[in-house]
Amino acid sequence: MSFDVLQDKIRAMKNPTVAGLDPKPEYVPPHILNACLEEYGQTLQAAAEAIYRFNCGLMDAMCDIVPAVKPQSAYYERLGWRGMEVLERTIAYAKQKGYFVIADVKRGDIGSTAQAYSEAWLGRTKVGDTEIASFDADCVTINGYMGSDAINPFINTCKELDKCLFVLVKTSNPSSGELQDMVAGDRLVYKVMGDLTQRLGKDTAGKHGFNLTGAVVGATYPSDLRELRRRLEHTFFLVPGYGAQGGTAEDVQYAFNKYGHGAIVNSSRGIMCAWQKTGAEGKDYQQAARDAALAMRDDIRQYVTIV
Amino acid sequence: MSFDVLQDKIRAMKNPTVAGLDPKPEYVPPHILNACLEEYGQTLQAAAEAIYRFNCGLMDAMCDIVPAVKPQSAYYERLGWRGMEVLERTIAYAKQKGYFVIADVKRGDIGSTAQAYSEAWLGRTKVGDTEIASFDADCVTINGYMGSDAINPFINTCKELDKCLFVLVKTSNPSSGELQDMVAGDRLVYKVMGDLTQRLGKDTAGKHGFNLTGAVVGATYPSDLRELRRRLEHTFFLVPGYGAQGGTAEDVQYAFNKYGHGAIVNSSRGIMCAWQKTGAEGKDYQQAARDAALAMRDDIRQYVTIV
Repeated sequence: MSFDVLQDKIRAMKNPTVAGLDPKPEYVPPHILNACLEEYGQTLQAAAEAIYRFNCGLMDAMCDIVPAVKPQSAYYERLGWRGMEVLERTIAYAKQKGYFVIADVKRGDIGSTAQAYSEAWLGRTKVGDTEIASFDADCVTINGYMGSDAINPFINTCKELDKCLFVLVKTSNPSSGELQDMVAGDRLVYKVMGDLTQRLGKDTAGKHGFNLTGAVVGATYPSDLRELRRRLEHTFFLVPGYGAQGGTAEDVQYAFNKYGHGAIVNSSRGIMCAWQKTGAEGKDYQQAARDAALAMRDDIRQYVTIV
Repeated sequence: MSFDVLQDKIRAMKNPTVAGLDPKPEYVPPHILNACLEEYGQTLQAAAEAIYRFNCGLMDAMCDIVPAVKPQSAYYERLGWRGMEVLERTIAYAKQKGYFVIADVKRGDIGSTAQAYSEAWLGRTKVGDTEIASFDADCVTINGYMGSDAINPFINTCKELDKCLFVLVKTSNPSSGELQDMVAGDRLVYKVMGDLTQRLGKDTAGKHGFNLTGAVVGATYPSDLRELRRRLEHTFFLVPGYGAQGGTAEDVQYAFNKYGHGAIVNSSRGIMCAWQKTGAEGKDYQQAARDAALAMRDDIRQYVTIV
């Protein structure tokens, strides 16, 4: 689904946030984890199943107030194929619940390999005379270090299936500047990547004015965020770094345009781990996550009015 | 396993090449693919199983002459979790056959997410009181666009388990220069990345003098390859782009130091698809792959003498 669909969901809920599903085992409430360890032993299957139950519980608790989820592939890959099986089921469940699904995979490869990745995460794979979807997300994150060869195959898949993507532009981590902030010709490297992203997506804007090529821009560098918002008018932003990484609602306001459109802010730990602060040992993880999601929404709405 | 182990395997076989296992379905000989479609129907399981049988056949045919294999994750991911299950089995089989295994995943993420990726591909995952390995390769490829935050967690895992990694520095594709060849300060971007890679791996060199942080440097830009070899004395190179992409043995010679050490050259299609040129409809894919691997070895040995 395109950024039009995402923007419409955000407007309907008046909530420009996405819940990151980055399930480290210590984020899973003990009663869920222990039940799975009892049922499946100390196995990757037990850990994967625990994560699936936790994800579903979280998604049940927030589907009327949060428009999107963003599973982070690394936490599923570390459980081997059992984790990937649960990632497939998590994405399917999310779509069934009405969420827009961003697969945070940050893949970056070229030519037919990029094509294979785009089939894996967005498209379909041909087997014999038929085509089968595997992970089938609405949107992915990708890494453009290898240039447009790494982005174009995804764009083609997105055009065909009305989906969309985010390219890493200016990331939220402390060392992001080592490469991204270098002066390259007349621009900083992250601006080169931002300009490339918007250019490769040209002529794909939908009714809200955003190309199918979005950009990842961290909340932790608000002045860069503000400058990129001005520079990349047709680019939808995925904004990590709010909350645990230090970005505030005041910082993220700069990701939005004058209509309060064009960005979605991620929170992972703030929502998944909310139960750890209530003293109820995780029995209340659903209510705690919902409360945290509402608090985040209201925090951002102090600074952003969505028209 | 470290680059010492890889360099020793290369010396023992006098063959500085790695066989890429990037199994597109059209690379699988019809008799293997059709048997699987008959057994499992037109399913992802059928495609995955066909790829596994093909991989095993190739590895059986070359294990005494080729020191390493490099499965490309994208071609397994596009088959969903069934593909990932086959990737786990492929890596396990490769190790059993004595190959050094490079998981070509090009992952790039930060902090605890990078840690999760390094556990997935090189390390072990804690479940209850125990630790379980999942993909368990000897070496991975990673993308450093996000800076040292994306590389250091992998380095820590490598130090702990005596494994190693390759960071994308100068890639072999046509558009690699869009970002990598920009002038950033006093250096080109790819040199910044190369210098960072070598610096982060400092004090980890083994008996052959190579840090555990290697670099991906394409065969298709031989003058860059030659310059990087001089510049990054302690950095082992993974060299894609030989063969189908246009790199020649004459080009790749510049990846090696004066002892003929410090690099391994990849071929994927040239080996996997060798059977398509013999007219035997794939029945001879093992002999064809072996012949192609020997021809590649001998081609490179015209220019490189391994001491």
